[in-house]
Amino acid sequence: MPASSVNKDLQAERAKCSFDKNEFTLWWVGGSDKLKEKNDLEKFLENDPDFHNTTPLHFLSHKELYEETIRQSTAIFRKVRKFHEDRGNGDPSNYMANLGGLLGNGIIRQGNPLGIHFAMFVPALLGHASPEQQAEWLPRALKVQMLGTYAQTELGHGTFLRGLEATATYDERTQEFVLHSPTLSSYKWWPGGLAHTANYCVVMAQLYSKGKCHGIQPFIVQLRDEETHMPLKGITIGEIGNKLGMNGVNNGFLGFDQVRIPRKNMLMKNAKLLEDGTFVKPPSQALTYGTMMFVRVIIVRDTAIHLAKVATIAVRYSSVRRQSHINPDQPEVQVIDHLTQQYKLFPTIARSIVFKLAADNLWQMYTQVTAELDQGNLERLPELHAIACCLKAVTTADGAKSVEVCRMACGGHGYMTCANFYNLYGFVTAACTYEGENTVLLLQTARYLVKVWNQAIKGQPLGPTVQYLANFIQNKTNRHPWIDTVPGIVKALHTVAAGKLRLAFEHIEQRKKAGYTHEEAVNLTALELTQTADAHCRAFLVQSAYEMIEKLCQTATAPFAKVMRSICELYAYNEAIESIGSLVRFTTISESDINRLQVKLEQTLLAIRPNAVSIVDAFAIPDVLLGSPLGAYDGNVYEKLYEEAKKSPLNQEPVNKSFHLYLKPFMRSSL
Amino acid sequence: MPASSVNKDLQAERAKCSFDKNEFTLWWVGGSDKLKEKNDLEKFLENDPDFHNTTPLHFLSHKELYEETIRQSTAIFRKVRKFHEDRGNGDPSNYMANLGGLLGNGIIRQGNPLGIHFAMFVPALLGHASPEQQAEWLPRALKVQMLGTYAQTELGHGTFLRGLEATATYDERTQEFVLHSPTLSSYKWWPGGLAHTANYCVVMAQLYSKGKCHGIQPFIVQLRDEETHMPLKGITIGEIGNKLGMNGVNNGFLGFDQVRIPRKNMLMKNAKLLEDGTFVKPPSQALTYGTMMFVRVIIVRDTAIHLAKVATIAVRYSSVRRQSHINPDQPEVQVIDHLTQQYKLFPTIARSIVFKLAADNLWQMYTQVTAELDQGNLERLPELHAIACCLKAVTTADGAKSVEVCRMACGGHGYMTCANFYNLYGFVTAACTYEGENTVLLLQTARYLVKVWNQAIKGQPLGPTVQYLANFIQNKTNRHPWIDTVPGIVKALHTVAAGKLRLAFEHIEQRKKAGYTHEEAVNLTALELTQTADAHCRAFLVQSAYEMIEKLCQTATAPFAKVMRSICELYAYNEAIESIGSLVRFTTISESDINRLQVKLEQTLLAIRPNAVSIVDAFAIPDVLLGSPLGAYDGNVYEKLYEEAKKSPLNQEPVNKSFHLYLKPFMRSSL
Repeated sequence: MPASSVNKDLQAERAKCSFDKNEFTLWWVGGSDKLKEKNDLEKFLENDPDFHNTTPLHFLSHKELYEETIRQSTAIFRKVRKFHEDRGNGDPSNYMANLGGLLGNGIIRQGNPLGIHFAMFVPALLGHASPEQQAEWLPRALKVQMLGTYAQTELGHGTFLRGLEATATYDERTQEFVLHSPTLSSYKWWPGGLAHTANYCVVMAQLYSKGKCHGIQPFIVQLRDEETHMPLKGITIGEIGNKLGMNGVNNGFLGFDQVRIPRKNMLMKNAKLLEDGTFVKPPSQALTYGTMMFVRVIIVRDTAIHLAKVATIAVRYSSVRRQSHINPDQPEVQVIDHLTQQYKLFPTIARSIVFKLAADNLWQMYTQVTAELDQGNLERLPELHAIACCLKAVTTADGAKSVEVCRMACGGHGYMTCANFYNLYGFVTAACTYEGENTVLLLQTARYLVKVWNQAIKGQPLGPTVQYLANFIQNKTNRHPWIDTVPGIVKALHTVAAGKLRLAFEHIEQRKKAGYTHEEAVNLTALELTQTADAHCRAFLVQSAYEMIEKLCQTATAPFAKVMRSICELYAYNEAIESIGSLVRFTTISESDINRLQVKLEQTLLAIRPNAVSIVDAFAIPDVLLGSPLGAYDGNVYEKLYEEAKKSPLNQEPVNKSFHLYLKPFMRSSL
Repeated sequence: MPASSVNKDLQAERAKCSFDKNEFTLWWVGGSDKLKEKNDLEKFLENDPDFHNTTPLHFLSHKELYEETIRQSTAIFRKVRKFHEDRGNGDPSNYMANLGGLLGNGIIRQGNPLGIHFAMFVPALLGHASPEQQAEWLPRALKVQMLGTYAQTELGHGTFLRGLEATATYDERTQEFVLHSPTLSSYKWWPGGLAHTANYCVVMAQLYSKGKCHGIQPFIVQLRDEETHMPLKGITIGEIGNKLGMNGVNNGFLGFDQVRIPRKNMLMKNAKLLEDGTFVKPPSQALTYGTMMFVRVIIVRDTAIHLAKVATIAVRYSSVRRQSHINPDQPEVQVIDHLTQQYKLFPTIARSIVFKLAADNLWQMYTQVTAELDQGNLERLPELHAIACCLKAVTTADGAKSVEVCRMACGGHGYMTCANFYNLYGFVTAACTYEGENTVLLLQTARYLVKVWNQAIKGQPLGPTVQYLANFIQNKTNRHPWIDTVPGIVKALHTVAAGKLRLAFEHIEQRKKAGYTHEEAVNLTALELTQTADAHCRAFLVQSAYEMIEKLCQTATAPFAKVMRSICELYAYNEAIESIGSLVRFTTISESDINRLQVKLEQTLLAIRPNAVSIVDAFAIPDVLLGSPLGAYDGNVYEKLYEEAKKSPLNQEPVNKSFHLYLKPFMRSSL
């Protein structure tokens, strides 16, 4: 692109860059091999007629959107497959990550119904199918000769798994399971791709054998004929309707009327049902934690990627948009020069980076703990589970707020669907609910923390993420932390988390003494418990970011290290300011500490200001994935908004038929 | 409706009601006459085929949605007109409020393009047209023989009015104005109904006469031929595209290429342009404040009504939905029994009521101040303006958050478009941006507060909403407030607001001493200034609610008074908890005060719990306006969700054509 066509304000911003953007990008994408593959793949797709010159999805009807999404997703899948085969990399498991990255991160704006096949159906086979079952199903699944989804949630039942109603009753006579939906509320509801796309499904149902219930087990069920795609006998299937976002995902419902499947269709890697109907328990329940944890790492990482897009759009637009004077004798300023605007945008940049680091950190912990698991060592599993739960909850909740803050920072234009905030919000806010509703997850973390508190007061050894509780109890923590530095803030936030945990623990004990059951006492203390888990998570996020950035800075050039440290400081100062009430309660910080913190926050915003555009440039998100006239690399915002408007089908004719049908007769009716 | 068809949990909830619902409803709608009219009108529309058995808007394409919206809005308008004419009330200005209430509050889910005619075009005529001009235009406008909109915002210019670029240049020779859009960024952008609906428009443009600019003035411009609806010569017009919400509103763009209009089309109630091109200034700029203030009252009131709907949907659903045990030996509980759920829902009930009271209060102040204005007394105008600005900002910001908290409290089902949270969010979050972007409005309030602080330290008399500043300065405020009561919390919040204002004021002064201009110093202190305005507003909201509820309680029955006081307490305790950091900084509350506050908040939630369903029932929102399967009066949530799903056009055929077109060939391609 010739430089002359780039908006002048953006050119000036880029000229101010103080660091090596390529160094940042290499770190962000994970090395030069990955960067090359990313660039090649994006180039391969960039000018593809399959994704250009089509009517934007937001002008289509719900049904048309589904049809266009199927067209686009199958086309992308073919191309990505070809891309990898051409490079001698034909094994689908090798390019699933790339495909997931592309499909899951919005080249198709409203998500797609094939994603769930790779994100849940294949992982369910890997996690629950025995080696013989994998040999039967996996090759066809990887080649997408069968297309699957994963059905667990029911119309009346979500997070509380034991409440699921669908049944699979073993019939010894025929060695079959009879799948059945006894009520409307037991209809499977929500699985992506279930409605009109998938022809197979892993179904979670209550296993009954010999008149006894053996709890929830996974079954593989064929839903539709492979030739005609017609639903099979006894299967009621359809889509659940329009949603706030992700309308390409084709979420469906599924009811069973006495549907028979062979015994071998129960996935038996863990629990088993013998031919005679005898149930064999799995060696350990812990084994099933793996997939859940893996999905949470993905959610945290995806949230980081969504926020990188959001920040890119909002920062570039705010550098082009001019509004209001600061000094009345000068022209209107770039809105990014308003301190209030910086306070809306830059924390989102910081969150994107800190969440990515948290996902990397969680991934390291996950691989370490699963390696220990394979050795039969389950010790660190609860700690990992606890931190994964709260990280998923806090990053998605903060992420969703961040999207909306940045959208509103772009004023009215942010409200346009084409600006792409709306689609990104649809993804991020959905993640607050799925894979464990956030409040439920915070309570799971809190439950772990309460147990650990009990161990800590007894002086038992604690895992690394909760070691601070021992320090707190042994009074090793300085109650007057020096919050001018990031490590000081980490200590202060640890003191807050420990202080909140102590209070919640005491209130549970008091309520139990007053006659409540433990469970009732926990419910009555639930507000404090969620706040405790939240505080625990925030301390972890700052600590994790600090340690990983300091490690990075050991090998980074000085200018890049400076940028990363300022990002880390902004995140930490902002978290401290947001927690100021708790800091004042649980530490001994003074009014002058608070005033200094406010000044430091403001100084850090101003320090980041000159590099803001260059930092989002370094996220290296091509226009085709960014998908926003407000955020395009060239900054020609108004021209691009006008182009988008002209695509509206309403603008293809000067007078809409509704004028003649309704409006004119109405206006004449009162003559 | 027979009681037997009502969900049993809801029946049990209603049986627990401790107060007279009718008393609540009468207060909420404003008396028995209004209640009767509301009931009659709702009955009149309830079973109307024009609003039933049609495909829900969210399944339509963008274009179809517009066409269906025009059909529905003209039909509703005719019916409401007939309803009033049948009652001998044929003057349109009498039923505009009802129409606004119906059209503006979502009987048409995505807004409508006629609303702006009544909300802005007619008020603009009333506010800016001279008596002769009103005689010419108003009768046709009121009968909707001409359909108007109001065009101010441009593609490149929003809140900062002086930055508008469109010009109206007076040509003395022909006694005409020439309207022109000199750049793409000067295109009018956003006006509702502008795209394909309105045929007239009030346009704000820079007036040039005799080579001199006289600032922004209003002009009435015909856009389309009344017979053919074709755009007139020199007019480029269309719609701006799809949005996050309000897609029925038909927001448009408008460019002028040397369009000539007669001199009399400049609205000359205030400023005038004589035949010879002489510009005559208006007697006072203050007169134009009126409409703006009026619109802000409406926004606060509408936010309250939107939140009443949100609370109704979420509270009823949470009473029907069951999830998780509290005690393991008992069945799954209603989710409303989880304290965390109560903390998500009940503050929204409280906000709805407190915001309605604030709107009533603001309305009283507005009528009083406009009466004073008519007497030539402008004294209280800045105070009114300041409180209106921050009330609009805080209620819409808190309102938008409330919608999302309640939506997410309904889990996955809240994410469905048919649940109607999404449409309501579209309305409430849009109000954060339009009619003065929230941050800009908070800074306007702050600017007023800084001025008042200057007066206060000089001992000058202050208006009632800022009287607390004098008390603060004279040290009359008890720095250790008794926050166990609502008046104590009001005092505490006043101390916080005053404390923040003092700090911001000092920091501006320090920065000026360091060499910054006043404006630069203000920009560098803008974070603290917005927080100051926010604190000022929150104190006002609690105080206003307390005083108005105490007044109401003088005549209310004891059970109703008890409910209203518990609502007021919940709001106050919650605001105090949310401000805990500031309370600790600026007052001397202790750790035991905070613990007591937390306990009081929890107790208030539990106290409201038995009446929660009855309170939302008393908002008296009929199912047709609520428009949500989750919130229907009978609570048959799952049946209604399934009915909604069955309406999807995708569900009208077992196999979608995309299977044969794309999916099957794709799945076979890797055989």
